[in-house]
Amino acid sequence: MEKGISQAVIRRMPRYYRYLDELLEAGVERISSGELSKIMHVTASQIRQDLNNFGGFGQQGYGYNVSYLHEEIGRILGLSMEHRLIVVGVGNLGHAIANYIINGDNSFKTVGLFDADPGKTGQKVCGIPIMGVEALEDFLRDEPADIAVLSLPKEEAVAVADNLVALGVRSFWNFAHVDLELPGDVVVENVNLSESLMYLSYRMTEGV
Amino acid sequence: MEKGISQAVIRRMPRYYRYLDELLEAGVERISSGELSKIMHVTASQIRQDLNNFGGFGQQGYGYNVSYLHEEIGRILGLSMEHRLIVVGVGNLGHAIANYIINGDNSFKTVGLFDADPGKTGQKVCGIPIMGVEALEDFLRDEPADIAVLSLPKEEAVAVADNLVALGVRSFWNFAHVDLELPGDVVVENVNLSESLMYLSYRMTEGV
Repeated sequence: MEKGISQAVIRRMPRYYRYLDELLEAGVERISSGELSKIMHVTASQIRQDLNNFGGFGQQGYGYNVSYLHEEIGRILGLSMEHRLIVVGVGNLGHAIANYIINGDNSFKTVGLFDADPGKTGQKVCGIPIMGVEALEDFLRDEPADIAVLSLPKEEAVAVADNLVALGVRSFWNFAHVDLELPGDVVVENVNLSESLMYLSYRMTEGV
Repeated sequence: MEKGISQAVIRRMPRYYRYLDELLEAGVERISSGELSKIMHVTASQIRQDLNNFGGFGQQGYGYNVSYLHEEIGRILGLSMEHRLIVVGVGNLGHAIANYIINGDNSFKTVGLFDADPGKTGQKVCGIPIMGVEALEDFLRDEPADIAVLSLPKEEAVAVADNLVALGVRSFWNFAHVDLELPGDVVVENVNLSESLMYLSYRMTEGV
């Protein structure tokens, strides 16, 4: 039932999840699409259309049950499973991301940290020791990971990603400023800070 | 001439800029849309269409002059001007971003670092001392900033952003997990790591 849904709709789902999370925390039990529309600044019709892609969830005259909708969107986003992550490249950004994941949502668990700099081996981030990249193969044999976070210079990221694919990793959260060319069944989500900042710069310049 | 261009086209410009940067570094002087198409994995027709939005730049039978195109796209993206940034919230992520900007493109200059934690006041990141957030008003009077980077918990980000708008800041690079509601002439570029990771999780689950 979740096939054929546009990527634009899927891209909006985490935002719904975040607002529902806040409503849950605030003790709100149910909400109409009209009320949700006001706080999210999107039309009620868009909300209904987006959620109808997954089968609806709302009841005429009742609205949405916040807890149920939160759980269902979480399930759609794959958050009901635990994802095991490794972080490769523990510079400032990698350190921040590792910290962020370790202290964040329970759906994502950091199982290993790796860096090419031997000087970092054995240092700990939130109790997890940093290992050398040469330890990846042995580590992944015992502790398979779902997601590799790449926070490396672009030159290193390409070789590391190829190696990780050979070792069975199928998803990448890529912070390196390079387009990885990986097999078709491998999922890559790019976070390109440089492009984001340039886009901001454009909008400042053009006033849009 | 740059009005009415779709945001999707603009979003693609930094990627062109990155590839042209690499071509320049590699000493390539000119390139056809066909060759650019092969390395960027987009169609030559898309490249021609995208660039035609800004007046073209290519010459029949010659292709694109790499250096000229690089410079022009940089100009379109506002990179020919210097942007002055402040970073508010110098935790792990703020620290990484500050570092990243300080060591990156010359178009972006970090002029001040601020944190609400008095324990951080006076600590330095790449030679720039961290100040308390209460110092923002005096600081910005003497050293106006174009862009504020927000790497704060969401509860604090809203108040800080409102305060910065009152102090004249008109552009925000927002890493806080909150939708800022600011006046219409203020530009906000959100980087929501949590939403990016959830989107990756969805694609892993659905195999898309």
